[in-house]
Amino acid sequence: MSSNGATDQGKTTLEYSELQSSRLRVSLPLPEVLRNSFNVIDGPPSSAAGNPDEIVKLFPNLFGQPSAEVVPGVTPTTMSNQSLKIGVVLSGGQAPGGHNVISGLFDYLQDRAKGSSLYGFKGGPAGIMKCKYVELTTNFVYPYRNQGGFDMICSGRDKIETPEQFKQAEDTVKKLDLDGLVVIGGDDSNTNACLLAENFRGKNLKTRVIGCPKTIDGDLKSKEVPISFGFDTACKIYAEMIGNVMIDARSTGKYYHFVRLMGRAASHITLECAFKTHPNITIIGEEVAANKYTLKNITDYITDLICKRAELGYNYGVILIPEGLIDFIPEVQQLISELNEILAHDVIDEGGMWKKKLRSQSHQLFEFLPQAIQEQLLLERDPHGNVQVAKIETEKMLMEMVETELNSRRNQGLYEKQFRGQSHFFGYEGRCGLPSNFDSNYCYALGYAAGALLDSGKTGLISSVGNLGAPVEKWTVGGTALTSLMDVERRHGKFKPVIKKAMVELEGAPFKKFASLRDEWALKNRYISPGPVQFVGPTANDLSHTLMLELGAKA
Amino acid sequence: MSSNGATDQGKTTLEYSELQSSRLRVSLPLPEVLRNSFNVIDGPPSSAAGNPDEIVKLFPNLFGQPSAEVVPGVTPTTMSNQSLKIGVVLSGGQAPGGHNVISGLFDYLQDRAKGSSLYGFKGGPAGIMKCKYVELTTNFVYPYRNQGGFDMICSGRDKIETPEQFKQAEDTVKKLDLDGLVVIGGDDSNTNACLLAENFRGKNLKTRVIGCPKTIDGDLKSKEVPISFGFDTACKIYAEMIGNVMIDARSTGKYYHFVRLMGRAASHITLECAFKTHPNITIIGEEVAANKYTLKNITDYITDLICKRAELGYNYGVILIPEGLIDFIPEVQQLISELNEILAHDVIDEGGMWKKKLRSQSHQLFEFLPQAIQEQLLLERDPHGNVQVAKIETEKMLMEMVETELNSRRNQGLYEKQFRGQSHFFGYEGRCGLPSNFDSNYCYALGYAAGALLDSGKTGLISSVGNLGAPVEKWTVGGTALTSLMDVERRHGKFKPVIKKAMVELEGAPFKKFASLRDEWALKNRYISPGPVQFVGPTANDLSHTLMLELGAKA
Repeated sequence: MSSNGATDQGKTTLEYSELQSSRLRVSLPLPEVLRNSFNVIDGPPSSAAGNPDEIVKLFPNLFGQPSAEVVPGVTPTTMSNQSLKIGVVLSGGQAPGGHNVISGLFDYLQDRAKGSSLYGFKGGPAGIMKCKYVELTTNFVYPYRNQGGFDMICSGRDKIETPEQFKQAEDTVKKLDLDGLVVIGGDDSNTNACLLAENFRGKNLKTRVIGCPKTIDGDLKSKEVPISFGFDTACKIYAEMIGNVMIDARSTGKYYHFVRLMGRAASHITLECAFKTHPNITIIGEEVAANKYTLKNITDYITDLICKRAELGYNYGVILIPEGLIDFIPEVQQLISELNEILAHDVIDEGGMWKKKLRSQSHQLFEFLPQAIQEQLLLERDPHGNVQVAKIETEKMLMEMVETELNSRRNQGLYEKQFRGQSHFFGYEGRCGLPSNFDSNYCYALGYAAGALLDSGKTGLISSVGNLGAPVEKWTVGGTALTSLMDVERRHGKFKPVIKKAMVELEGAPFKKFASLRDEWALKNRYISPGPVQFVGPTANDLSHTLMLELGAKA
Repeated sequence: MSSNGATDQGKTTLEYSELQSSRLRVSLPLPEVLRNSFNVIDGPPSSAAGNPDEIVKLFPNLFGQPSAEVVPGVTPTTMSNQSLKIGVVLSGGQAPGGHNVISGLFDYLQDRAKGSSLYGFKGGPAGIMKCKYVELTTNFVYPYRNQGGFDMICSGRDKIETPEQFKQAEDTVKKLDLDGLVVIGGDDSNTNACLLAENFRGKNLKTRVIGCPKTIDGDLKSKEVPISFGFDTACKIYAEMIGNVMIDARSTGKYYHFVRLMGRAASHITLECAFKTHPNITIIGEEVAANKYTLKNITDYITDLICKRAELGYNYGVILIPEGLIDFIPEVQQLISELNEILAHDVIDEGGMWKKKLRSQSHQLFEFLPQAIQEQLLLERDPHGNVQVAKIETEKMLMEMVETELNSRRNQGLYEKQFRGQSHFFGYEGRCGLPSNFDSNYCYALGYAAGALLDSGKTGLISSVGNLGAPVEKWTVGGTALTSLMDVERRHGKFKPVIKKAMVELEGAPFKKFASLRDEWALKNRYISPGPVQFVGPTANDLSHTLMLELGAKA
């Protein structure tokens, strides 16, 4: 391992706050099984999450391979004891802890495969395709230990999809003579990692591929991968803000705060933040979809509660809304697809004649929307001419619809207070915070484990660290066959492999616990304010409620 | 002191996070001078901050009174050793630490004036006028120790202004037989406190009045009142978020984040957050006003820097904007006053003929504004029919103006990148956080000192704790004559007393330091991420940069 090689580009411009510096100096514990001699052993053969008959066709070389477990061992181990050439890439949105995955991988190579080289592909998968990389040395890696962000090598959202792109990836791993590649990413990126592993194996390349579960959204998880990294820290940061806003609401007694939280596909973040803070209303997208709620239903639900609280003397409250809410509402999806059709072919006349082309329910919904949202739907389109749903500020939209409904009730003598809304979106603030102790330690173990898996010749696995309810030293370590997480989706007439996003399960322990508490939170003010993430002290090692409930439910 | 009196209404519904509980148990240190026997001694006579000839007319009984200092003493002290009846009120917006002022006052009475009663007026000054109060007992006060928010007795923005209102206040203090009243508030509230003190003294009532300096904005300070409480915590919370967003910006490399920060009148928060995080651009309202910058100037300043950074390969950045920015721009003030005039008397025709009534510069400015802002200015008016300046989302307005300018430069071949903006407003999140160690300790000392000042017969003073660069035990304690902070303003043909807001001084140490650093921050990426407030560990007792620089500048 050359720690002062010619490619060493340790950024000298990094500056640190006192807390960042102090975090840098904190040493990282490893699970006991990784601290001593270990072997990597195979479990029973695996299948797929769905449609194994199709998965086996898509992954003929990898399908069915067993998951792996790291167990205490004595020499001779399954480890190579040889130097390795490994690449690593960060894929997709930031999540606190990514740097520690790289640190863990780096330290594995330092500890167990002396003389190895680690290459960091820059800017995400595009870095693999363009062979843009930096050699990661001690000087380069160390300054990012326990630090937030992905700025060590940055990330990107490109995908390796076409035959040409796979060829580029092959060229890169051949050029760098890579023994292995670690892909740190979400469900899509890990699917991609598995396709790369299959491709390399199919072509008899020596390069193995291991994935690592990253996403603040918490929607990449399974029995063997209990949580994705970043979720813990992001939720803690959002909950700090929500808790502060709650105490503010109770102190002023005159505002309803509508808080939108990151998490487009699944509502795990919103649910976890609800456990941490006890808001009056929490909208869970999966429940909205399951019950086919309309926007009017949701508006009424909120408005009813505001009226009930007014009767109890409370003219304030806090409402949590998942970022992806409107994607969960079937009628909105219908309206948007009709709008896309109309916008593509027709003229939007000022007189509104175009609206006659909408189906009756869609027309009704369109008229129900606040004017600003109507305009946004008609005016702001993406490069393909489609409505930009992601740009809609759902919290403001709901706030306005609730206000309109309250005004109408006031006119009927059903509501007498003055409604004042405040809207918030907590998103980017949570993706790059200093990782919590949990994410710091979890990521370090994930990265170290990825090194061990590669070193023992594994490919197509996702690094899996378990028993997370126990102290770090008792954590279990292994790798789960990526194909075992796969199902297929039909796109453009073809089967595509996908790792299904783990949604909030309405029959799961976390949602059920929430459902049993929310009525009390709604009318009584059970606010709790978790405060800022602490790195030392009694709260420093708290786990997320979601994880604890899921661990308990499985026990 | 009845700790279980009939009026004890300790809220049993309060719930705590683990961190809140642990903060509750933390004991509060007192400055050494308050721990032992002490005397309160007078300094030299005082004058006024401006127009003493008018201040003496407005405060004939109080003008010129000396400031007071608490010094080590032996019995007989100036303390009464008798039980007291004291009222306390929280006035205006929340600031972290308010509960500890009350705790300090309460503990003073417990320690030094046994048998005393403390009444908390509910919902701000309206509570005084309506005699709405709660007796504060040990059980009532204790659960709020070191906790954020003002929810112990809540706050309000009413003012005691008219002769009828002063009469109501008199009735209340007579009814409760109050020896003293502590007003916890900002510049306005402390002016009001001084008027009450003058009024009570003029009418030979025994009720003394002591103020305490509260505001997260940091614009209530003087030589003897080095900082208002809440500023420290609020800036730390905002800076945590800004730091996170910065690392995100550096990691993705594709966003400019426009961050608006609370602070309507003065830009202290924005300046302090700049020191804590090193953003690429920081707009300081006071500098904008002093240089009579136009919106176009500010837009160009930002746009120029974005272009320069693009040349250096940076297509991202972070820009801090004070909430009150547009109040500092003379041309905007002019436009708004013209709009108010026109909106009051004329019809806004769709053809835009009404715009001819605007002066040429105002017309130009109006056309320069983004359409959404134009509409907001015309449509959203307060109950008096005036334009609602406070509702304008300055960060979005600037972002849009910058984008428009960049598009125009792109058309001229001067800018080639794609600009993507993200906007944030950090406001309510910072007002009710768990108070930092500094604010916890500072507030406790302020409250304890207020008790001592009242007990020694003082009135019309603001509780003053100094030598804040030293450890708590070495802090100095006293009271500053509120009249000495006063000047007059002419309103409706009359002189009104005001405590002038302490603005960012362009010749002061903090701004000068900032000005010497900002060019480097602009082009090099010197981001630092302060991370979440810590209550233990190496960063737990950090002071604000602003305070340290001001202390240094005075030394």
